[in-house]
Order: sequence, then C-alpha cells, then structure tokens
Amino acid sequence: MSDARPVYFVSDGTGITAETIGHALLTQFNGIDFRTDRLPFVDGPERAREVAGVIRAGGEAAGMKPVVINTCMDPELSSIIAESGALVLDVFEPFIAPLEQELGIARQPRVGRAHGIADFDSYHKRINAMNFALNHDDGISLDYDDADVILVAVSRAGKTPTCVYLALHHGVRAANYPLTDDDLDSQRLPPKLRAHRHKLFGLTIDPVRLAQIREERRPGSRYAKLETCRREVADAETMLRMEGIPTLSTTNASIEEIASRLLETLGINREMF
Amino acid sequence: MSDARPVYFVSDGTGITAETIGHALLTQFNGIDFRTDRLPFVDGPERAREVAGVIRAGGEAAGMKPVVINTCMDPELSSIIAESGALVLDVFEPFIAPLEQELGIARQPRVGRAHGIADFDSYHKRINAMNFALNHDDGISLDYDDADVILVAVSRAGKTPTCVYLALHHGVRAANYPLTDDDLDSQRLPPKLRAHRHKLFGLTIDPVRLAQIREERRPGSRYAKLETCRREVADAETMLRMEGIPTLSTTNASIEEIASRLLETLGINREMF
Repeated sequence: MSDARPVYFVSDGTGITAETIGHALLTQFNGIDFRTDRLPFVDGPERAREVAGVIRAGGEAAGMKPVVINTCMDPELSSIIAESGALVLDVFEPFIAPLEQELGIARQPRVGRAHGIADFDSYHKRINAMNFALNHDDGISLDYDDADVILVAVSRAGKTPTCVYLALHHGVRAANYPLTDDDLDSQRLPPKLRAHRHKLFGLTIDPVRLAQIREERRPGSRYAKLETCRREVADAETMLRMEGIPTLSTTNASIEEIASRLLETLGINREMF
Repeated sequence: MSDARPVYFVSDGTGITAETIGHALLTQFNGIDFRTDRLPFVDGPERAREVAGVIRAGGEAAGMKPVVINTCMDPELSSIIAESGALVLDVFEPFIAPLEQELGIARQPRVGRAHGIADFDSYHKRINAMNFALNHDDGISLDYDDADVILVAVSRAGKTPTCVYLALHHGVRAANYPLTDDDLDSQRLPPKLRAHRHKLFGLTIDPVRLAQIREERRPGSRYAKLETCRREVADAETMLRMEGIPTLSTTNASIEEIASRLLETLGINREMF
C-alpha cells in the first residue's frame, strides 16, 4: 500500500489536454499526495479494457479509489473506462450540451484531434519557426527582417527557451540578441536593433539567480561572478528603460508565463499549438 | 458584422489550460467559423471588468453571443466575466465538487498556478534538458551517457523539434543522431550508438514529404532530390528494423504525438510541464 492517490490521464490522443487540466485541478488540492500516470492513445474497446485493467490494479495496489481525468470523445470507450471503478471525470462532457444549444448544431466527435497534425500548413509553420529560432539564437544571425520578435537580454537570462517555446507553440519567429559589454558600456541600443524597435522585448533576471545559472555553465569564471552579474543586469535594465523597451523579469516566471506576457505586450494574437 | 463566432480564452494565469481545452472543444464543432482570442492574467476585479468589456464589445461587433472558456479560480472574477453576456463555460467548476467529496477535503483556490514557476527545481530541469538538446543536436556532441533518449533518423525527419519538445515539456534529455551515408551503407548501427541501444528511438518519414522539406532548405540540391530521399529512407528503415529499434513515422504525426508515443514506447513516465 502506498499513501499516494493514483491519478490517470486517459485520452484517445496524446493525453496532453487531460494532463493539462488534470494538473490544474490537482494543484487545487494542496497537501494530498498524488501519483500520476498517462494512458494515451485509447483508440478502441480493446485498448480501453487494457487501460481499465491498469487503473483497477493501481487502485487495488494503493488501497484507494483512483481518479481518472478522461478526454476520450467516444462514449463507448468512456463507459469501458468507468468499469475500472475509478472516479472518472469526463473533461468535455459538461460543456458539449451548452455549446450544442448555443451553436445550434450537434457536435461531431473527432477522436484524438486536439494534438494531432490537423493542419499541415500550421505544422510546417511551427517547424520553420523553430528552425528560425535555432538559426537566430545568441545573435548567430543578425538578419532580423523576418523576425516577429527579438528578445534582448544579457547572457543566460532566459532568451533561448522563450524563443523555442514561442516557435513551437505559437509559430512565432523569435530571434534573440545577447547584450555584449560594448552594448552595455554605450548605454544605447545596438544599431542593428534600432530599425526593429517595435519587435523588441527585454528580459531581466535577479543577479543572484543569474550568477547561479552561469556558475553551473562556467564554474569559477569571471562571467559567473555575482559582481559581474550585478553590473551587467543593472546596465541592461537602465538601457532597456531609457530606450523604452518593454521588459519582464524571468526570475519568478515560467517559460509559459514569459511567452504569454510577451505576446500580450506586443499585441501578437496567434493560435496556440 | 462578421460571420465568425467570437471565442475568448480567459484565465487568471497564462491561459494555456483554457486555450488547450477550448481548442479541443471547438474541434468538435466542425464547419463553424470561430475567431479566438486569449485574455490572460485576469488577476483582480479591475482586470475582470476590462476583460468583460472586451468580450461584450466582441459580441456586439459580431452580432453573436460570444463563447468564453474560463479558468479563473476566483468565483468573484468569474461572476464579473459572466456580466459580459457571453456563454461562459467554467472549465474547473464541474469537477471540484466530485473531487472534494472523493478526497475528503475542500479545495484551496490557488490563482494562476497551473503554468507558473511552481517549482524551481523542475524549471531548472527543463532548462538544462533544453541546453542538452541544443548541445546534442545533429550529432554535435556524441557523448550519450547522460542522454535519456537518442533519436536516430536521416536528416530533416523531425529529430530536432522532437528533442526540444521532450526537453521543454518533460525535462527529458534527448540527443539526436543523424544517419550518415556511411551508416546507411554499412546497414549497421553506428558503433557509438550500440552501447545505448535501450535509449534509441528511430524516426522515419515519407520520402516525398522529406524531399519537400529538404528542397526548402537547399533548393535544387542532390540532398533534396526525391531519388536521394527514397534511397536514404529505405536504407534507414531496413537498418532500424534489422537492429530492432522502435521506429515511428513522422509524416502524419504532430510533435506532441511523436513525443507521447516515444515516452510510451520507451516506458519513460515523466510529469508534463
């Protein structure tokens, strides 16, 4: 017997929707220990019975009723899963009837479409945006005409993960420019960036955190010294403020939050993948 | 007046949960034209009133009742949003009561936590995994001891986006190895990979699609020729099959689907970020 409540994210597709809403629900019950598992690609009765068996066994091993967050669209599969004896929460079920009524048509169940390759063009766009991010990482290429966004910050402030996230999930072509000592000394925007002022977004970070991150990368270096980090961050913040570039601290922000605030600030409305 | 039904993803955090479930719901109503908008960071009554105004105006402009997918946890904010006159679907509401009953405790509303930086360690892990993916991209570094997964495929079959996705969303350290002409000629796994057989996952792709992708990258090259692609893909598939490496076609799979199937196949159970 274990003390952790078994939770299963069950889906006819990747399970990402089930897991996303499941995590959000579980964070509402702080203090309870959950053990979560993904059971994706439930695409027929046979797989549904297999999955129901896994869930039932998990409940017996834990001595507790499992919780299932279910996004299977086919009611037949959902009812097989319900035979597991778990508390089954059907994510879409409560919303279908009000939507059908408001939209005036019946839904057409489409299995596993949420994170499939529904649209080749948008898929292609994500991949191209990702290639763009990698080719324009750390100032490798300074051709910014095709960029939707240019992130400006000192080294290791969080530019690269943000660019890659923006590409993957929004198809946004995000370049990044690492501020050099020369840029910081001059207290001015690098000339290359001035023509793209409306695309610029600054990142900053707590110098103590920055020093930790840099120390992992280059232990004992001048680059990682707290003193260096303090000076660089102070200079960068002054310059970004003077130039009027919208800037966000990454110290307590997740990549998702940085990306979301950036899109909001720059007024970029892109569908999420 | 427009023909598109306005849909708003409203959240006290990034809005990712609202948008994820919202997209899944909308795909059930094929044939209806939706215009979607994200309204994130609704963190107080003032912002809630502002957002309600945006929604009301959107409905008036379209001449249709807007649909709101709402993940705000605070009932006060949700009731302000309801004053917009939209059909408001509260994503968490239907599931809280059954969970409270089963778990035997009341929920503690935690605003905007789903995609915040809840846990610095796991955040750090994502970033480190991302750095790993970029440093081990396209065989740049061949030190695979620290890798959780090594993707094996011909050039442009989808290795890099998959590695980056696995890092960002699962903290999985994914390296990738591009099969060279020498590898393909020898019909054997490259010696460097043999010691890591249990970490290997192959990708394959339809040669016609591969030729399109390569043509964009290097127009008119031998590399992009359909004949070249056909031969490389056939040789790679033969080799992967003979060596018993689990392999997936990326032709009709999204990055999410590839990642999800890979984790399932290799038995890697990681929380999703």
